[in-house]
Amino acid sequence: MHHTTPWEYRYAHRTSRMGSSVIRELLKLTEQPDIISFGGGLPAPEVFPVKQFQEACNIVLNEQGAQALQYGTTEGYRPLREMIARHNARFSVEVSPDNIMITSGSQQALDFIGRLFINRGDYIVVESPTYLGALQAWNAYGAQYVSVPSDEHGMIVDELEKALRVGPKFIYILPNFQNPSGSTLSLERRKKLVELADKYGVPIVEDDPYGQLRYEGEHLPSVVQLDSQMRGPNGGTYTGNVIYLSTFSKLLAPGIRLAWVIAPPEVTRKLVMAKQAADLHTATFNQIVAYEVAKGGFLDEHVKVIRATYKERRDVMMETMEEVFPSEAHWAHPEGGMFLWGILPQGMDAAEVLKVAIEKKVAFVPGFAFHPNGGGENTMRLNFSYCQPDVIREGITRLGLTLKEMLRNNGK
Amino acid sequence: MHHTTPWEYRYAHRTSRMGSSVIRELLKLTEQPDIISFGGGLPAPEVFPVKQFQEACNIVLNEQGAQALQYGTTEGYRPLREMIARHNARFSVEVSPDNIMITSGSQQALDFIGRLFINRGDYIVVESPTYLGALQAWNAYGAQYVSVPSDEHGMIVDELEKALRVGPKFIYILPNFQNPSGSTLSLERRKKLVELADKYGVPIVEDDPYGQLRYEGEHLPSVVQLDSQMRGPNGGTYTGNVIYLSTFSKLLAPGIRLAWVIAPPEVTRKLVMAKQAADLHTATFNQIVAYEVAKGGFLDEHVKVIRATYKERRDVMMETMEEVFPSEAHWAHPEGGMFLWGILPQGMDAAEVLKVAIEKKVAFVPGFAFHPNGGGENTMRLNFSYCQPDVIREGITRLGLTLKEMLRNNGK
Repeated sequence: MHHTTPWEYRYAHRTSRMGSSVIRELLKLTEQPDIISFGGGLPAPEVFPVKQFQEACNIVLNEQGAQALQYGTTEGYRPLREMIARHNARFSVEVSPDNIMITSGSQQALDFIGRLFINRGDYIVVESPTYLGALQAWNAYGAQYVSVPSDEHGMIVDELEKALRVGPKFIYILPNFQNPSGSTLSLERRKKLVELADKYGVPIVEDDPYGQLRYEGEHLPSVVQLDSQMRGPNGGTYTGNVIYLSTFSKLLAPGIRLAWVIAPPEVTRKLVMAKQAADLHTATFNQIVAYEVAKGGFLDEHVKVIRATYKERRDVMMETMEEVFPSEAHWAHPEGGMFLWGILPQGMDAAEVLKVAIEKKVAFVPGFAFHPNGGGENTMRLNFSYCQPDVIREGITRLGLTLKEMLRNNGK
Repeated sequence: MHHTTPWEYRYAHRTSRMGSSVIRELLKLTEQPDIISFGGGLPAPEVFPVKQFQEACNIVLNEQGAQALQYGTTEGYRPLREMIARHNARFSVEVSPDNIMITSGSQQALDFIGRLFINRGDYIVVESPTYLGALQAWNAYGAQYVSVPSDEHGMIVDELEKALRVGPKFIYILPNFQNPSGSTLSLERRKKLVELADKYGVPIVEDDPYGQLRYEGEHLPSVVQLDSQMRGPNGGTYTGNVIYLSTFSKLLAPGIRLAWVIAPPEVTRKLVMAKQAADLHTATFNQIVAYEVAKGGFLDEHVKVIRATYKERRDVMMETMEEVFPSEAHWAHPEGGMFLWGILPQGMDAAEVLKVAIEKKVAFVPGFAFHPNGGGENTMRLNFSYCQPDVIREGITRLGLTLKEMLRNNGK
């Protein structure tokens, strides 16, 4: 018997459902400096507003250092919550600070939603493919998944009704520039989604980290906005069907771990209790500094810089794929966000491709990882936000060569 | 039927075990500027090293802004983990960075311990009274508690053996200047605790937020140190019986939410998986800034300032109690930490006292809140770290008057 501690025999049942993820292993690869990684989901460090952040740190520590370094309230720094409420008003969603809780990244909101709502064995309706972080968060609570297929316009909502009839706890959807597929749910499907959810009494979790990162086409109303409109005036506090998540990770910086959740007030109160038990509150300092950076409207200007940077990188990636990828491969055209979805010929296994690609010092995430009920073996997720354009060109060229070689060898 | 959202009927079973805590309600009272509150557990803002923190923010953003604002690894910033390992070496505990994970406050470590180890109905051995935050964290996982009584020298370890025979998952103990009782576990009892835990194969969670805040007497070895010594040389990586928690909240500032957990490597790996699903990682920026503040040995000097400040406040509180409290009341003499434990005459209800005290604009936490299996109705927790000395004198005077009045009225 190998050496053990008594802890080893004491794990709770849910521990068996935790797994170290493919993405985590890939993030480790990205730490090797010689790998070109399209595997992570990192923002470009070139667009971090370091100077503005530094100014804000100095102002906050000069003017309210004692408050910024002290314990704070669990729901979050009130001026920040009020600012988020005003931001939503611009998109015609009437929410009050009572609808809003600050979280340590959207991952934490996903965890709390699992904690509040998922009994072991409960079904959650997800897009196929869907966001891996949500699956990781909810697997620990024993969730099962009903996958609804999606195409370039997002979830195929005509297939949703069947899924709603199995009695799921909620629907999870990323309507804008989805992670991993890059797809955007069409306006028609958004409306149908809101109606069907209302018809079956099944609520919706809308995860929207990239909504403002649109590089072409028109902004579409969020699902929470459509739900709110359907219900009519609400007296300033949202009491509808949707829990909405968004984040400062893509607009400001992920390293400060700052996001928010919008929910009906009764749910927000429960979220606050969950957060109190989980980590008391999100760092006061980070919240006040983010408020200081954002309060004068800086993010409205800054997001234009991010959009220009990522649009260029997306375009370079697609152009290079056009040049170097084998004609058997296809890919979607994302209108925003950070990810491009590649589709290899049927029967080709992206996990096998990854093994060869890593030898050529280029990485991505095989698409099967995003399918909770299997499938997607011939798909791949490519991040275009992190690497600089010339690096993208080099990495995609290596990947194109890898694919062509493998297809040639298979053909033999 | 009142207006509801579909969420209201969808809460998971564990949600019923979440409650908004007494402490939380009391923290709300402390937000009223005219209340003198001994209820919270706040550090003195006067000792926050605002200047050092500001300098560190500037250095970090100038020199490694891109890294500090980017996503980081789940286990935490390696130089910070290495620094914590070196710090432990000074106290003769051989730990490697593989033993250490950074958490968003110790509350998060408590939550993860619950997530990893507690099946619904499992028993945890706790001191009576014990830390409320741990109960809140573990109630959500369906824990039950075996209370072992304690006195001014901490848990009465002679009573522990009986508790270990019920088959508990682990023992939870705060050996230094316990929250809430202020008691310190004697060296003899620490040794006995380590031996008994080893004899029964029941592991220990040692929660040590205040260990360095000692105002008199000799530093005692931590439980993890004694366990480590008992096992002998370990090759630089701890593989013993104890999970050890500590925090920067009391030494640096709580508003940055930065703490650490030391565990056998196999447990640390599972903690990392839990954290990955829960919030990906603790804010990179906060970790690098804390490292920058601490790396040159600043905290060794700074802790002397904190000790001097809190010792004065403790002494003022005890002196004033001596003057104004009725002779029927007693209190313990804490050698460190942030809390003083008051004992009222048997039959007097501290919750009733609180109601009257709040009218007189002074607050504390009734001791029953810290007893998971009942008891302690005549006890109260008084925080002495937050209020300045003259405020402590005024608040304790009001409280003394309240107690005398109530005793007089009861006597009628």
